[in-house]
Amino acid sequence: MKYAKIRTHTDNRSLNSGSKHGGNIYRLAEELGMHEEKMLDFSASINPLGVPESVQLEIQRNMKYLYNYPDPDAMALRQHLSAYHDIDAESIICGNGSTELIYLVARVLHPMKILIPAPTFSEYERACRTESYRLQVASFQLQEENEFEINPDEFIKSMKRCDAAFLCNPNNPTGRLIKKNAVLRIADAAKKLKCFLVIDEAFMDFRPEDSVINEVKNNPYLIVLRSMTKFYALSGLRIGYGVFPQHLIKALNEHKEPWTVNMLAQKAGLAALKDRTYRDKTFRLMNREKRFLENGFKKIGVTFYHSDANFYLLKINDAEGLCRGLRKKGILVRDCSNFRGLDSRYIRIAVKAHEENTMLLKELAETAQK
Amino acid sequence: MKYAKIRTHTDNRSLNSGSKHGGNIYRLAEELGMHEEKMLDFSASINPLGVPESVQLEIQRNMKYLYNYPDPDAMALRQHLSAYHDIDAESIICGNGSTELIYLVARVLHPMKILIPAPTFSEYERACRTESYRLQVASFQLQEENEFEINPDEFIKSMKRCDAAFLCNPNNPTGRLIKKNAVLRIADAAKKLKCFLVIDEAFMDFRPEDSVINEVKNNPYLIVLRSMTKFYALSGLRIGYGVFPQHLIKALNEHKEPWTVNMLAQKAGLAALKDRTYRDKTFRLMNREKRFLENGFKKIGVTFYHSDANFYLLKINDAEGLCRGLRKKGILVRDCSNFRGLDSRYIRIAVKAHEENTMLLKELAETAQK
Repeated sequence: MKYAKIRTHTDNRSLNSGSKHGGNIYRLAEELGMHEEKMLDFSASINPLGVPESVQLEIQRNMKYLYNYPDPDAMALRQHLSAYHDIDAESIICGNGSTELIYLVARVLHPMKILIPAPTFSEYERACRTESYRLQVASFQLQEENEFEINPDEFIKSMKRCDAAFLCNPNNPTGRLIKKNAVLRIADAAKKLKCFLVIDEAFMDFRPEDSVINEVKNNPYLIVLRSMTKFYALSGLRIGYGVFPQHLIKALNEHKEPWTVNMLAQKAGLAALKDRTYRDKTFRLMNREKRFLENGFKKIGVTFYHSDANFYLLKINDAEGLCRGLRKKGILVRDCSNFRGLDSRYIRIAVKAHEENTMLLKELAETAQK
Repeated sequence: MKYAKIRTHTDNRSLNSGSKHGGNIYRLAEELGMHEEKMLDFSASINPLGVPESVQLEIQRNMKYLYNYPDPDAMALRQHLSAYHDIDAESIICGNGSTELIYLVARVLHPMKILIPAPTFSEYERACRTESYRLQVASFQLQEENEFEINPDEFIKSMKRCDAAFLCNPNNPTGRLIKKNAVLRIADAAKKLKCFLVIDEAFMDFRPEDSVINEVKNNPYLIVLRSMTKFYALSGLRIGYGVFPQHLIKALNEHKEPWTVNMLAQKAGLAALKDRTYRDKTFRLMNREKRFLENGFKKIGVTFYHSDANFYLLKINDAEGLCRGLRKKGILVRDCSNFRGLDSRYIRIAVKAHEENTMLLKELAETAQK
């Protein structure tokens, strides 16, 4: 047996690369022979206010010190997060985006059977499959007729005999929130069932009152992941964090690769947390533009679902034609056909600035009239 | 069996975090109540010219676009690397520092028995252990009396019955290079033995003529990893790449986490590769300062070893006392006592700018006189 074993997978569906998620503006720019900054990207659900000024200043101030390694413990950021959320700094681990932490959780928990809603973000399943050849996936189908709302009691029932369950809250790509009370009920059941419950709160900054981040300390089976790349428009820089029960911290640190969170991401994260003005401006913009878009959808007659996040799932008859038409104009939307539980009629669009939203509604209206 | 299995390790020695590597300037700054930028860090082997101006300009130009996800395929950077090294872009994978790629290689090759020199960079062993519980490590002891030079024939003999062998070239922490011819001889043997040979060329930009990066296409068992964080002083930003034989590319991409290489790192890497002036200036500075330091070591009577990189391994009787004394002054050197094959008498120091090197020699002279 001289060959080193090379792991392979049969289910390629769940092993797609990053480029299978949102649209790839770099490829589209190349295709159209245009500059990547000219692309209009509704496929990535990112705050349209863009990178906070405070963050840009901090990057500028620190870029000449990039010869220093990043702090492997991200101490300054963790201490600030600790004060911000009123949680123990020791329970926080920062990641190269929350994506790193999804993989780290899979590596440490090493679950054999997981419960995952459908549709949801595909990386939970991919991460667990990368770790376990014989992973069993219990798919919890969300119902369109209930606007993809989750039924907590049904979810709890399905959690039995699972090692871990993942919930994206608000859910991607539906935008649907599970209220705090219901999440806590599920978390209590998880504890009793000894099933780890991973709540991915990547979009929870848009609904901070429904976070369960403060409950981790009371539940050894509860894990909460957060991203700073959506709300603070820092997708390109990669910064996320997780809050973990104490008994997992040692194993997580033992399996964590060193220096994953770059120094500018750490500095940027800290600056963003201090930027209350940016947060207030975001809430105002979201309220205004979500109303505007919903009215627009209704006027055109496009089917959309209630969203608690900064994006909408839409159902459109000729979604493929729409996507194709928009691409030619340098506009990307998220074709949702590769989400388990959805099909080619669904697209996801981000809430962007007023001018861009107006443009999207115009394009949707034209397609609807065809 | 309700509990998700949590992996634990018995050999904690190899599972240290990033903070166990170089000194942590952030902790030292906190300790001394000084600003982290005031620390003098000889423990990290980074080009003292600092972050290239060209890179800083590029960061400034792009920071406002950080709302975009990084290109998951790092296409632009890979195409430039392809032209720069005259290798196929398809054979290149970029990483969040070369560290990510060490872990990715371990995950995909999943070796059960590895050959590793001692002393060398500790992450090869840590990465493989994270993947394989029952990993066997064959330690290839380098001899001080040979100035830690590797004997290729002996190394080839030890490679038998191993799945993978790691070589850091030039080696960290000794600074010793294996000449290209010798590496190729080892690579040929690896191919015959069907043992993967991973050459970590993190410091090879200081000795480009001895790289084997162009040989990967001819050898299905050869992998070359490169870092851009040392030569281009971008440790804080994290950027590395690997060149892999074609048959491994699919499995590597299947196991790679998405969006790991942040957008500024990709832009910075590209700008750095174009910066010939910075490279020329680096070679001039290194020649001058390495001569200066070696003369200084001789004058003081400090034992040092031949180095082909931008750092030196030193043997000092009271190394611990020296480290302690320097720390109080905000100066960090790399205590090498936790390198397998070395002990507390060894320290590693980076070649820095003239003023700083002068200061270090003065401190060493004072210790020597005690």
